[in-house]
Amino acid sequence: MEGVDFLADERRKAEFDVDAMKVVWAGSRHAFNLSDRISKLVASDPVFSKDGRTMMPRKELFKNTLRKATYAWKRIIELRLTEEEAARLRFYIDEPAFSDLHWGMFVPAIKGSGTEEQQQKWLPLAYKMQIIGCYAQTELGHGSNVQGLETTATFDPQTDEFIIHSPTLTSSKWWPGGLGKIATHAIVYARLITEGQDHGVHGFIVQLRSLEDHRPLPDITVGDIGMKFGNGAYNTMDNGVLRFDHVRIPRDQMLMRVSQVTREGKYVQSDIPRQILYGTMVFVRQSIVADASSALSRAVCIATRYSAVRRQFGSQNGGQEVQVLDYKTQQSRLFPLLASGYAFRFVGEWLKWLYTDVTQKLQSGDFSTLPEVHACTAGLKSLTTSATADGIEECRKLCGGHGYLCSSGLPELFAVYVPACTYEGDNTVLLLQVARVLVKTVSQLGSGKPPVGTIAYMGRIGHLMNCRSKVQQANDWQNPSAVLEAFEARAARMAVSCAKNINKFAIKEEGFAELSADLLEAAVAHCQLIVVSKFIEKLQQDITGRGVRQQLEALCAIYSLHLLHKHQGDFLSTNYITPKQASLANDQLRSLYTQIRPNAIALVDAFNYTDHFLGSVLGRYDGNVYPKLYEEAWKDPLNDTVVPDGFHEYIRPLLKQQLLTARL
Amino acid sequence: MEGVDFLADERRKAEFDVDAMKVVWAGSRHAFNLSDRISKLVASDPVFSKDGRTMMPRKELFKNTLRKATYAWKRIIELRLTEEEAARLRFYIDEPAFSDLHWGMFVPAIKGSGTEEQQQKWLPLAYKMQIIGCYAQTELGHGSNVQGLETTATFDPQTDEFIIHSPTLTSSKWWPGGLGKIATHAIVYARLITEGQDHGVHGFIVQLRSLEDHRPLPDITVGDIGMKFGNGAYNTMDNGVLRFDHVRIPRDQMLMRVSQVTREGKYVQSDIPRQILYGTMVFVRQSIVADASSALSRAVCIATRYSAVRRQFGSQNGGQEVQVLDYKTQQSRLFPLLASGYAFRFVGEWLKWLYTDVTQKLQSGDFSTLPEVHACTAGLKSLTTSATADGIEECRKLCGGHGYLCSSGLPELFAVYVPACTYEGDNTVLLLQVARVLVKTVSQLGSGKPPVGTIAYMGRIGHLMNCRSKVQQANDWQNPSAVLEAFEARAARMAVSCAKNINKFAIKEEGFAELSADLLEAAVAHCQLIVVSKFIEKLQQDITGRGVRQQLEALCAIYSLHLLHKHQGDFLSTNYITPKQASLANDQLRSLYTQIRPNAIALVDAFNYTDHFLGSVLGRYDGNVYPKLYEEAWKDPLNDTVVPDGFHEYIRPLLKQQLLTARL
Repeated sequence: MEGVDFLADERRKAEFDVDAMKVVWAGSRHAFNLSDRISKLVASDPVFSKDGRTMMPRKELFKNTLRKATYAWKRIIELRLTEEEAARLRFYIDEPAFSDLHWGMFVPAIKGSGTEEQQQKWLPLAYKMQIIGCYAQTELGHGSNVQGLETTATFDPQTDEFIIHSPTLTSSKWWPGGLGKIATHAIVYARLITEGQDHGVHGFIVQLRSLEDHRPLPDITVGDIGMKFGNGAYNTMDNGVLRFDHVRIPRDQMLMRVSQVTREGKYVQSDIPRQILYGTMVFVRQSIVADASSALSRAVCIATRYSAVRRQFGSQNGGQEVQVLDYKTQQSRLFPLLASGYAFRFVGEWLKWLYTDVTQKLQSGDFSTLPEVHACTAGLKSLTTSATADGIEECRKLCGGHGYLCSSGLPELFAVYVPACTYEGDNTVLLLQVARVLVKTVSQLGSGKPPVGTIAYMGRIGHLMNCRSKVQQANDWQNPSAVLEAFEARAARMAVSCAKNINKFAIKEEGFAELSADLLEAAVAHCQLIVVSKFIEKLQQDITGRGVRQQLEALCAIYSLHLLHKHQGDFLSTNYITPKQASLANDQLRSLYTQIRPNAIALVDAFNYTDHFLGSVLGRYDGNVYPKLYEEAWKDPLNDTVVPDGFHEYIRPLLKQQLLTARL
Repeated sequence: MEGVDFLADERRKAEFDVDAMKVVWAGSRHAFNLSDRISKLVASDPVFSKDGRTMMPRKELFKNTLRKATYAWKRIIELRLTEEEAARLRFYIDEPAFSDLHWGMFVPAIKGSGTEEQQQKWLPLAYKMQIIGCYAQTELGHGSNVQGLETTATFDPQTDEFIIHSPTLTSSKWWPGGLGKIATHAIVYARLITEGQDHGVHGFIVQLRSLEDHRPLPDITVGDIGMKFGNGAYNTMDNGVLRFDHVRIPRDQMLMRVSQVTREGKYVQSDIPRQILYGTMVFVRQSIVADASSALSRAVCIATRYSAVRRQFGSQNGGQEVQVLDYKTQQSRLFPLLASGYAFRFVGEWLKWLYTDVTQKLQSGDFSTLPEVHACTAGLKSLTTSATADGIEECRKLCGGHGYLCSSGLPELFAVYVPACTYEGDNTVLLLQVARVLVKTVSQLGSGKPPVGTIAYMGRIGHLMNCRSKVQQANDWQNPSAVLEAFEARAARMAVSCAKNINKFAIKEEGFAELSADLLEAAVAHCQLIVVSKFIEKLQQDITGRGVRQQLEALCAIYSLHLLHKHQGDFLSTNYITPKQASLANDQLRSLYTQIRPNAIALVDAFNYTDHFLGSVLGRYDGNVYPKLYEEAWKDPLNDTVVPDGFHEYIRPLLKQQLLTARL
């Protein structure tokens, strides 16, 4: 049966040009070619095989990752890959490794916060991987609240050194990837103390291990923090714990781009504004949003393909059962996730543009858009990662029992993905930051300071507070401006309502705290509006290829209307729509599901994922699921022997016992 | 610090008698004593330690489970435990094992479907564990649709035998626990074919392995299906695959209580009605609901205790940061889950009563309540397991980053729990069964056949379609009858609306299929009503102990009002409440959170879980979290050596290389 495409019928049904859609998904012809080439390079190299990953004990798993990560580096050198290509290569290897932190956090931190001299000293070593770095910020007792970190860096003017110290157990560095077993160096965040004064948290370059024998340097305790969620998953990474007992480093290992300590121990600000550091945060968050669309689309691809293969119930006259994908219950859970995958992709693309835009503004000293950009990236990080984590698990459930097998790929995808909801800003904390900006915006309305960027719609508050939906029949909801106004009115009304309720409190901060659950909902409404509006903007761009625009229009409508249905309480309680209009939206949603159904397989093919990257028997391109599931089963170590270890010791005596005394 | 209770302050705050609440939670003084005694027995026995479970490779893990399960059996005999005590013992050992299926499925199947003679022959062997059984129903290609199973049992009158056969790959038995490596026997479900006719699916007792050397009998292929979701978790179980190549068994190994094959090969029905088998299904589902309340309350206990230990932000004047449990965002996510734990407990208790009630009715030949009982158990299984799976993951997120560590216990709890959404009826399929009964009930209204049991409220359809909420201020929502009417009106209106929409279709089945996503929502509304109404009924019972009733009233209100808020679109769109009333419900919810806050720790203490059962560093009774997290970390195998395996092979050459050619 090898070589047969069991999904060929499904592929023939598609009403659009899949190759053109692949380019739209990738973002450009260049991006498509790059991804296509690198993903195939990885998929065809046996060293990058994922076989057995979910069965390996920790040490073996970790060693295997070292093998892959160092081989990847070798290939990067041999093939003379560009930085962009190297990043794609690591992405398609699809296995968290110490090198992610080296390239993704250590190098950027030095670039962003190091002086020219520091960059000249450290970057060449890092670029050649002659040192390996990690990023040691969070502590055992301190995560979200960076200002609460306890590690200290006390300047000693006698020796021109900083003394790095962990004063309490809770100040132990905890979680940094690559720290546990591999990193030779770390960017350590610690409270800078000089001349008896605490100047808050700053970054320091600290060597952790000998470059000769890899043993921890004196007065440093370092190790791995133990197993994490899932099989394989993040257990390939040595997230670590680190304690310092008065470790001395030279003064020039404080990252001194924006603030410095002089030879005498004076704390001084450089002429580079602190805000310049926000650029890095925008960059990191845009890449998290891009990762969300990748992870969600991967899960959706697996669930969609398997839903076309799997049949249950409804056979008539002894014929085949019905494809699960034909059930409206399946469609109503799966297609909104498919639409979300596309929606997150496009909002991620826009964030990439925003990053370059804000970088230019920062460089020219224009910080005016920072609060809005900060809120927008925080909110989109929160929205997309939460929806993706839930969406992957939903896709697993949509595969029925078999989604529970590691060979489905979904358990590992879920387990490896969920930390995105916590790292780089806890999702709840981030939404509250969005809410704060919204409430502030409302309070400043009419002050002559018009809201900008993604909050600009608040400038039309008069209209948005009073308008009513004009929808009269189901397909009026297909009109982007009808949808956009609905999401704007909802977001604006929720924000205004929160702001009003806060104003009833004598102390505003108390009101904010008391009403924070409502504020989260207002923040979500605002963020959903951003995603909807960016999808609609995408549709206004030049889109080529037979039928491609029609599919994207349907997906955009599905994304918007499923949210409208899910949150219809918001739209109804703010009186923007009537129950009748809510019901029409639901009718339209149903007919969109029918419209998208024949294109479902082609729409996930457009992600252009190799079977290697998917790592799922259920999601195989050729749909040849059952023989391969069967084959996979026999690879489990338990099947090495017919009679299992422990049988003679435990089970045989049980079977052979003669019971006399049991009450049972 | 050993022996210090870091949560003592929290415990002192409690406004009710925790010991009295423990009895309410357990269901009775007897049940409390039993659970308390057995859970401590397990916790104090080093053989039942869970240490290292999430780090063990598959074979070692499995062998370890064999050790525990057989030791448990030894203790059951030695201590002469009753069946009830033995079941609690297995529950508190908290590790899925082959014996679960033996006692939970194999024995009950013989009891329920075997004739008197079959029971006399097989049960003594099973009771003494001289044979070990499993339950082989689902197949590689067939799960939910039992009638689609492909395995055949063809009667051969020549030899008075059945020939059990797997005609296709997709007919391979797939998933049965205990099958992979341990079971000597199985109840195999297969299509009964005799005299050339297919009589549908029946159960057969089939020996799988030699009782001498444990090898599979001739023409039987059997093995483990491989790794499943999570560390430890269900990988302690040998879920299996099984194929038959024309395996012969004697005729008397068909389970013949309700239908038989005669010596001549005639298929005949006995005088015992088929409906008698439904009793078992009700029993299994009530125990699943009870398990849901256990699993959810466990996760809630961990998250609540750690939320009292963990502090983030808000320190003033250098003092301690604020306990996470004091944040309204945390409360609004956590307290509804705490309330759900209690709600599911009480509805489970009621289901236990329903089981005895329906058993008596069945025995006296009264099948009239069966459709309603069937729908109600199906719906509650679906509702509680879905909410529990989501709730555990939410609790994990509520613990921040540390919830991602296996030592938090939450990853394993989640991974081991989620299959409950799929087994014993896929949750979506079950809800559609509920919807079917609802639609039928609506269509029969006014026919003179009054709806019974949990659907009885439909009998007041005239009132429920037209009434409006009379709530005028927030604490009017504290009134149980106001809440009950709201949930009844919502459920009734959604069911009627679905029924009306279906009637617009020429072919009703097509309407049902097309509108199935709406039908799911109507079914959920109905099931939530059941849970709310059983919680309210519980409050009408005699409840003793200082402050206990007040706490339960608050929890009941939280459970109801958080649902009302979450689904406010349903209540608003059916015009039962106004936006103002929805907002009042939300205000009331907020004040309930404040009211429950000082009692939160005591309310989870009332579950009476040992630290052994919780299996979580974050959920420790004494709150001594950080030193223990630190201690746990060092147990990881990666920390066996300072320099990790693979360093010399992979990392050292990398660090020592001299790069000349990189483009980076």
